[in-house]
Amino acid sequence: MATDVNRRYVLRKRPNGRIDDSTFELIEEPVPAPGSGQALVQNLYVSVDPTNRAWIGEEPTYLPPVGIGECMRSVGLGRVISSDDDRYPEGSLVTGLTGWQDYVVTGEGEIPLTPVPGDTGLPIESMLGALGLTGVTAYFGMLDIGKPQEGETVVVSAAAGAVGSVVGQIAKLKGARAVGIAGGAEKCAWLVDELGFDAAIDRHASDWKQQLRDACPNGVDVDFENVGGEIMREVFGLLNLNARVPLCGLISEYNDTDRQSGPSLQRVLVNRVTIKGFIILDYFGRFPEAIAQLGQWVAEGKVKDKHTMVEGLEKAPEAVNMLFDGDNIGKLIVKV
Amino acid sequence: MATDVNRRYVLRKRPNGRIDDSTFELIEEPVPAPGSGQALVQNLYVSVDPTNRAWIGEEPTYLPPVGIGECMRSVGLGRVISSDDDRYPEGSLVTGLTGWQDYVVTGEGEIPLTPVPGDTGLPIESMLGALGLTGVTAYFGMLDIGKPQEGETVVVSAAAGAVGSVVGQIAKLKGARAVGIAGGAEKCAWLVDELGFDAAIDRHASDWKQQLRDACPNGVDVDFENVGGEIMREVFGLLNLNARVPLCGLISEYNDTDRQSGPSLQRVLVNRVTIKGFIILDYFGRFPEAIAQLGQWVAEGKVKDKHTMVEGLEKAPEAVNMLFDGDNIGKLIVKV
Repeated sequence: MATDVNRRYVLRKRPNGRIDDSTFELIEEPVPAPGSGQALVQNLYVSVDPTNRAWIGEEPTYLPPVGIGECMRSVGLGRVISSDDDRYPEGSLVTGLTGWQDYVVTGEGEIPLTPVPGDTGLPIESMLGALGLTGVTAYFGMLDIGKPQEGETVVVSAAAGAVGSVVGQIAKLKGARAVGIAGGAEKCAWLVDELGFDAAIDRHASDWKQQLRDACPNGVDVDFENVGGEIMREVFGLLNLNARVPLCGLISEYNDTDRQSGPSLQRVLVNRVTIKGFIILDYFGRFPEAIAQLGQWVAEGKVKDKHTMVEGLEKAPEAVNMLFDGDNIGKLIVKV
Repeated sequence: MATDVNRRYVLRKRPNGRIDDSTFELIEEPVPAPGSGQALVQNLYVSVDPTNRAWIGEEPTYLPPVGIGECMRSVGLGRVISSDDDRYPEGSLVTGLTGWQDYVVTGEGEIPLTPVPGDTGLPIESMLGALGLTGVTAYFGMLDIGKPQEGETVVVSAAAGAVGSVVGQIAKLKGARAVGIAGGAEKCAWLVDELGFDAAIDRHASDWKQQLRDACPNGVDVDFENVGGEIMREVFGLLNLNARVPLCGLISEYNDTDRQSGPSLQRVLVNRVTIKGFIILDYFGRFPEAIAQLGQWVAEGKVKDKHTMVEGLEKAPEAVNMLFDGDNIGKLIVKV
């Protein structure tokens, strides 16, 4: 329901480590008035992603850091409630960088909002999940960089997350063995029983390293890396000749203050491994290809997704910490 | 001069760290008798390379570890002194894995010996340098992985070594800026004054990190990595968007007993960097292409090489340590 107040989370202080009460301030402003050729969008859902944490660090990432006093940047999904722009008809859905706020005006963000096709028959939350940036990330990371072949072994870390869960399912669709690393028995059971992973390693188990080796008797051909740190080191120790590492995220390191260290590259050298960092925005022009294919897979039940929904914009900062604590299964979404 | 004794260095004990007196044993055996269809080769020069150290470690590299009691593996250059094989005419030169020994019989090694064209007019030592495995390594690492573009910045570590010195010269030939990192003022002067590098950083200088940053005002587009460790970490901190890292060697780490740590991959992720480990033997089928091009460049004076010659097979173990101490400029060769 539209109101006349626009709640916005603005960045107050860059966190040293985890986000805490001093990081953001929730302010109230009047709902912005769209100008000529603009549309007003009511934000319905906020996508919670590891990159949120990276965007409020000191260092530029692939986008400039969110400035102090600026509205927190995030991907979201909203509905057009008034429009003077034919590309965004009233009542239609849009996605893009809608931010942590109730309302946003088109044409004012860093990247244009994208209209969402209205006739997919899929749940609206999938637009932020399997068909959203996270699904598209899994798609291009796997197909352009990972290139899993029949019979190969794909390991994905943060496997029960929004990206990882789709990565493993794409591995299976390509005839590869899918091994997920996730935190907790519930997530692992979901990966194997519901999504069809061949094995899931609970990183909280004391013998997880041994479990990982056991689950990869023929080594690792693709390490879809979301986590970094100790998990990446272990997987790197199993990399096969000509293995590929789509480097998608290093979530275990984003809260670190010391970022000096990574895995040894000895095996990367000897086994001619390719590591490729990638940022999904580089694939912007090819999103329709990915969304069409993922949409088909979702409709056919070949790719399943799941959401953890947090109610209320005011919970957004807390939701980012949940992500780092591993308190979500599948896509973490804040319902505004 | 041929004798009837074949001196051979055999591996006695895997070193824990540096090679020492207990690592090898110099034994004397009768000169081997070539069988039907074989040729006898007198070893003239032994190529001393960082990979020699890696081959005597516990772990397999791209070839199995040299076995205890086996002749030490190394690249070399020899002359055929008797032959029952048309591919190796008497008096011709051959190169390949001739080992640390006076004589070798063709067809008994892991990889066939390669005939050396007799009419290049270039010094015989160049066959192990700019036209040898090290030159070919520079060639494919740069052209297939580094792909330097006009105006880009290429940084190469161990720049005064046999690979690095050719890497920088290829960078210049492709219109890129060449920045070398080497140990000592003499090497740095050689790189800039003789080889045409744009800058050379003496890693023994207390402010070498600052010098490196100053020498790369526009960041680093290609890091041709030979060294690893602290040098790689510093260069990684300067990697540009879409930078490439041909990962050729990690010499600073080969003597390490703890190989757990490498550079942070944060910047690799954010800047979409590609790291690619490579082993020159994978390019075996394309060696003629590289040797032809390098030969032309050498003949035209566009690629220069230099050798540090150590006299006597008995000095081979010591020569490997020289390499790690940085006591050579250009290609380090033992004259048998």
